[in-house]
Amino acid sequence: MPYQTVKGMRDFLPEQAKKKQFIEDVLRKVFESYGYEPLQTPIVEEFDLLAAKGSGGEAIKEEIYWFKDKSERELGLRYDLTVPFARVVATNRMLQRPFKRYCISTVYRYDRPQAKRYREFTQADIDVAGVKSVMADFEILQASADAMRRLGFEFKITVNNRAFLEELARACGVREEQVKDAFRIIDKLDKIGEKEVRREFREKGIDDLLLEKIFVNSMENAKEKTGETESAKELAELMGLCKANGMSEVSLELSLARGLEYYTGNVFEIKLKEGPSVGAGGRYDKLIELYGGEATPAVGISFGVDRLFDALESELIIGPNTDVFIAPLTKEAGIEATKIAAKLRLQGISVEVDLAGRNIKKNFEYANKRGIPFMIVLGENELKSKKFNVKEMSSGKEKEFAFTDLNGFSKLVKGHN
Amino acid sequence: MPYQTVKGMRDFLPEQAKKKQFIEDVLRKVFESYGYEPLQTPIVEEFDLLAAKGSGGEAIKEEIYWFKDKSERELGLRYDLTVPFARVVATNRMLQRPFKRYCISTVYRYDRPQAKRYREFTQADIDVAGVKSVMADFEILQASADAMRRLGFEFKITVNNRAFLEELARACGVREEQVKDAFRIIDKLDKIGEKEVRREFREKGIDDLLLEKIFVNSMENAKEKTGETESAKELAELMGLCKANGMSEVSLELSLARGLEYYTGNVFEIKLKEGPSVGAGGRYDKLIELYGGEATPAVGISFGVDRLFDALESELIIGPNTDVFIAPLTKEAGIEATKIAAKLRLQGISVEVDLAGRNIKKNFEYANKRGIPFMIVLGENELKSKKFNVKEMSSGKEKEFAFTDLNGFSKLVKGHN
Repeated sequence: MPYQTVKGMRDFLPEQAKKKQFIEDVLRKVFESYGYEPLQTPIVEEFDLLAAKGSGGEAIKEEIYWFKDKSERELGLRYDLTVPFARVVATNRMLQRPFKRYCISTVYRYDRPQAKRYREFTQADIDVAGVKSVMADFEILQASADAMRRLGFEFKITVNNRAFLEELARACGVREEQVKDAFRIIDKLDKIGEKEVRREFREKGIDDLLLEKIFVNSMENAKEKTGETESAKELAELMGLCKANGMSEVSLELSLARGLEYYTGNVFEIKLKEGPSVGAGGRYDKLIELYGGEATPAVGISFGVDRLFDALESELIIGPNTDVFIAPLTKEAGIEATKIAAKLRLQGISVEVDLAGRNIKKNFEYANKRGIPFMIVLGENELKSKKFNVKEMSSGKEKEFAFTDLNGFSKLVKGHN
Repeated sequence: MPYQTVKGMRDFLPEQAKKKQFIEDVLRKVFESYGYEPLQTPIVEEFDLLAAKGSGGEAIKEEIYWFKDKSERELGLRYDLTVPFARVVATNRMLQRPFKRYCISTVYRYDRPQAKRYREFTQADIDVAGVKSVMADFEILQASADAMRRLGFEFKITVNNRAFLEELARACGVREEQVKDAFRIIDKLDKIGEKEVRREFREKGIDDLLLEKIFVNSMENAKEKTGETESAKELAELMGLCKANGMSEVSLELSLARGLEYYTGNVFEIKLKEGPSVGAGGRYDKLIELYGGEATPAVGISFGVDRLFDALESELIIGPNTDVFIAPLTKEAGIEATKIAAKLRLQGISVEVDLAGRNIKKNFEYANKRGIPFMIVLGENELKSKKFNVKEMSSGKEKEFAFTDLNGFSKLVKGHN
């Protein structure tokens, strides 16, 4: 019986891994172009942190991998990148503020495995700690939209404000103890539809005036109940900055509640046009303090890299990294091949040498299949004349170079790229 | 009480993470220049795989993180990247051969934590599956030496052949059941010294003729006992290829046994000059078959990225990614700043905008401390004239640009880089 991957987890074979890396490289480059810096934290965290108030709570046990180590310490695999980020900010008070970091790494959830839901998946996060201004909320959205555009996606961004939604709920007669249930139900609107949301509200005895306001989805209309508030202003400022920057993908969505308890202000979600949610986040001004740090406002977003990968996999075509394939015909030619390859690599050219001692036909098929643009065959004649022919695989054209003229050959290869 | 990282694991704060990423980027680039392609496999594997014969064995339980999931499946955190690689090759028979892959990722060991020993650490591996020829062993060493040079290290590489060492042991009168113990003791030579190795051999009743041969450390001398053998030829061929390529860092080390049981042929180790081991590997021709795959020869190496990081941390200086810092003085200037920043980023320039609304002095200090080369202050005057001054931080020189002349400004920035 062959060994398999753990249920709900998957391998990325080279063709897939190259595509996933391409996506991660684009995200990293965009994040760095906004001044975000990398932070790496362990996959394993103390269970107490993962289950802390404000993050997962004890109930998280059902949804994550947790275990005791040989010293009976309770540990768990992190289920997001925000909790470790908040821990780092809480415990490293000398960190420069604002602290702007990105992190692209795996997280773990013990979800019921289903199509396109994984128990190990990669998130790409940016967060800003230490800035109260909506400028930070906007930058998160600007960088997110930038990333989505550079990946070639059509997308939409919905925004709301968690505090305003709470104010609206209260103003609509939702009782304090009903707010959590109300938001949990509203969050499912996309999945279960308006009718079912209304039914669940009735079932829980929650005043459905809130639903009327949410379905109208207009700040002017909602403010008839709440009046002008700080949180309404924050949301308006965020939308104003988006508008000033021509971000037509951004729209208000009063039903966006975001399940996670730690959000305190503006919240946002990114969806593919006619597709799934690929990113979400918001402002969480209390979490770092809850972890024992100084009171520190924070805002951020998480991208689901697996979702981006699943959406792009069939469209992306990533060429080979290899520029040149060298096929030696004899042992002596093999030695010469390793030397020529070394010199070419010093010039920034990527070279593969046949290691398997295959014949010309097989090597030609291999180079062709891999899409390698140039091929060199080295045999006794070449060793004697100290010259080799380079075949451009796409045209079949050949050109001769002396072993001592690798600069000329490098120029040819670089001209091709 | 503040939350901490799990014992034996560590955070890489941005200054450190940038250095670690630099090392990983260099390794990746070198590996790709030899035609190696990425493979990503889960951190979590079935315990049965981790404890399989040929890899860890049941005893591995003491040395790794393992646990049961909520369905009572036994799982564990991978302790190296070779086992998952061999699993992938064994179970994906349609993979192109030779299969050349790299992987740079974390692995986990439940070691007693001590200085410079971590329970989560990063390995960088390259492996070739499907090639019996010593050309593959050599390529692994060539790529390794290349990587070490590009990282600026002085280093040495020692090589041996595991099968030859076994032949030598037998020829020197070491009994079959003593071979494992003998190798385990020899492996400690660096740590415990010649005298202690001799003592342990005596204690176990192992013939010390093997030690004489090993300490002389000459193939000619050793072959007086074994005669010419296949494994001696493989070792000679590897050393010959290294010599032909001028790799003076490579030398024979007959005491190199490599603890792991799965090695079958040439083995190698990379050490910093006067420093610790930073990489090791060898040929393991049986492992893939043991995992249920077709008989497939394989060879590879693992670099310890944490060791490389610890050796380089104090020497590396990584500049900021940010080219330009924009400090807006008013809310309106803030909006303009986001627009200018967006245009500059489209030209490949990395721009940070002050999000915190600090005054000029504080922003100047911040940009200076971060080493950002250019700074722009945007106030009412700038908005009115639609021009801004760019200060080159190193010289203090200023130059004026119109909001509409961002191309001219981009050229200035790119010229600086």
